[in-house]
Amino acid sequence: MNKPAACRLIYLVGYNVPMAILLFTDFGSGDIYVGQVKAVLQWFAPGVAVIDLLHDAPAFNVRAGAHLLAAMSGRFADASVVLAVVDPGVGGARGVVVVQADGCWYVGPDNGLLSVVAARAHKCVCRHVVWRPSSLSASFHGRDLFAPVAARLAAHGGLPEGWSEHSGGLSVEFGADDLNEVIYVDHFGNAHTGLRAGGIACDAALSVGARKLRYARVFSEVAEGEAFWYENSQGLVEIAVNCGSAAQLLGLKIGDRVTWV
Amino acid sequence: MNKPAACRLIYLVGYNVPMAILLFTDFGSGDIYVGQVKAVLQWFAPGVAVIDLLHDAPAFNVRAGAHLLAAMSGRFADASVVLAVVDPGVGGARGVVVVQADGCWYVGPDNGLLSVVAARAHKCVCRHVVWRPSSLSASFHGRDLFAPVAARLAAHGGLPEGWSEHSGGLSVEFGADDLNEVIYVDHFGNAHTGLRAGGIACDAALSVGARKLRYARVFSEVAEGEAFWYENSQGLVEIAVNCGSAAQLLGLKIGDRVTWV
Amino acid sequence: MNKPAACRLIYLVGYNVPMAILLFTDFGSGDIYVGQVKAVLQWFAPGVAVIDLLHDAPAFNVRAGAHLLAAMSGRFADASVVLAVVDPGVGGARGVVVVQADGCWYVGPDNGLLSVVAARAHKCVCRHVVWRPSSLSASFHGRDLFAPVAARLAAHGGLPEGWSEHSGGLSVEFGADDLNEVIYVDHFGNAHTGLRAGGIACDAALSVGARKLRYARVFSEVAEGEAFWYENSQGLVEIAVNCGSAAQLLGLKIGDRVTWV
Repeated sequence: MNKPAACRLIYLVGYNVPMAILLFTDFGSGDIYVGQVKAVLQWFAPGVAVIDLLHDAPAFNVRAGAHLLAAMSGRFADASVVLAVVDPGVGGARGVVVVQADGCWYVGPDNGLLSVVAARAHKCVCRHVVWRPSSLSASFHGRDLFAPVAARLAAHGGLPEGWSEHSGGLSVEFGADDLNEVIYVDHFGNAHTGLRAGGIACDAALSVGARKLRYARVFSEVAEGEAFWYENSQGLVEIAVNCGSAAQLLGLKIGDRVTWV
Repeated sequence: MNKPAACRLIYLVGYNVPMAILLFTDFGSGDIYVGQVKAVLQWFAPGVAVIDLLHDAPAFNVRAGAHLLAAMSGRFADASVVLAVVDPGVGGARGVVVVQADGCWYVGPDNGLLSVVAARAHKCVCRHVVWRPSSLSASFHGRDLFAPVAARLAAHGGLPEGWSEHSGGLSVEFGADDLNEVIYVDHFGNAHTGLRAGGIACDAALSVGARKLRYARVFSEVAEGEAFWYENSQGLVEIAVNCGSAAQLLGLKIGDRVTWV
Repeated sequence: MNKPAACRLIYLVGYNVPMAILLFTDFGSGDIYVGQVKAVLQWFAPGVAVIDLLHDAPAFNVRAGAHLLAAMSGRFADASVVLAVVDPGVGGARGVVVVQADGCWYVGPDNGLLSVVAARAHKCVCRHVVWRPSSLSASFHGRDLFAPVAARLAAHGGLPEGWSEHSGGLSVEFGADDLNEVIYVDHFGNAHTGLRAGGIACDAALSVGARKLRYARVFSEVAEGEAFWYENSQGLVEIAVNCGSAAQLLGLKIGDRVTWV
């Protein structure tokens, strides 16, 4: 029989933790890469839910990705497995790490991408992955290496004996501090910064380029076309324009500096 | 009990209505928002299929979205739950509604988005959702409010006691009539209008801008590069060019008027 | 007990063929079409995993799509069902075929799209699909015709009596040979060619336009901003730039000729 039969079995044994594999990459949401990763996950962890968090993380920009991932990570369900890949050094000498942080697993390159999550976690264990697949492409470790590791974590709750070694720490550490830069621009043109909004006074003005922006709680509190900053749904300071594009209006792009004034 | 129990039943009794949660939003298919909605759905309705209908609905354009959603809604399986969000007023005072129309559930903002579906339904019941989550972001009700409601509808076939109240009707009503405008432009450059094609004579010419377009049944009936109108797969009048982009060739964009001549 | 345990059970009971339906189309990853296909698959093959391989295949370019699909097909799990649609002749007279090639099923238009897979397979059977749905739109056979066929293959491991007929062969055959053209440009700006890299000497230079490109094994072997060719993760010759866009730097687009020099 086929898949539905197996599913029936799963439901009968009655587990209730909707663990999932969450994907965070710069592979491109419309490109040929994500499906191949999912085919591997489906092969090694059939029946486990796979959720696309983001596949348009800033390309080659590990630091921005690390801060964006950390901002999103607060809401993941316990025992989730996050497969995170922004990996300009693929095929070179960088290692592979598994980080267990506050109840979730993170799998990714040891290039700093997981280091903000790790630095902010209350409880964190890092391990180096020494396992390598028998067939490893030079450029697509997301499919060939990270996906099998993530699938095994999801399917077994840990890695098989000998797949990983205790790690002294991550090779690249960006630390727990905020990043006072634009780290993401969404399709509305909102510019997300690496600043956490918690604890910032509402009368603080944000300086970006030659502009000073005031705070508003929601879009509808400012006039149409007006720029402002607010606490976005990831807890970050975000620059927005009511019914418009902040990126366009203010000429913002990833890496632009922001400061409190 | 929750969804897994229901699924169990479905598979065991061979029940043949594969209910799903269908997503219709302007969150952007490549952006950070959809995955967070899915994580919430997976949490509250594990095992329920979630299908992306559209995440690039015209941004801020509730009326166009309402007509596009209504055109797509004829084919949804009974008991499907549609989570629909085009919500420029998020964080303001607009309400939240659940519309039960012809066997399907629709959850969304009470800003007109669900009103065309409601007006065209043979049987329709509207309820206001009064439940609010303990933690509600100012800008992402799709994740914090609409998703939990949709998940509960899917998992329980209705909302818990006290979550909703009888509604006198929707606050914004666009009515059942057609909209004689371009409401969507797809990636091929085809321009979908808010006109339903059923009952239109094949010798009717469609006027858009300074152009008059004739009818063709299929693309291959006209020369390469020629513009025409036809009944598209949602039953709408669509402006297309054989092996080309109507949007580019005719300079079409959302909101452009169309008329029969 | 949680999910991993249940998955483990799957392995224990020997359920080891995670068959899936794989989608390869030019419907656009952000557009209204894919979700409707998935709703049909979910209806006729509930519980079967559906994986998006690519929805941004070069529009109207059947030959490029055929070569890209063939390059990706080596890794599909046995018994997978591939629904492949690049179909500029939709609504015209082209037929519908099911190709069983090396353990996988392929469903698509009989316009050559499946012909490279078929020509390269060690074992291949083609059948013409004569079944038609009671309601068939003129322009969306992906939803109305190909999806029900794919779902039935997935759910039953074959088509019902009378749905298909023995075929003398495919109507359009592109053959097994390589295609010395750019067949795909990904979002990084890497240009994938229809040349298979296996057996090519590393000192071979690739000529494209007025440029000659040398080989490198991985991106990090060349300077930032330098163009080169390498064997990509599908086994194809790909033109790339370290930390940059080859398409932009070299002005490459689909259809551009490449030759060995």
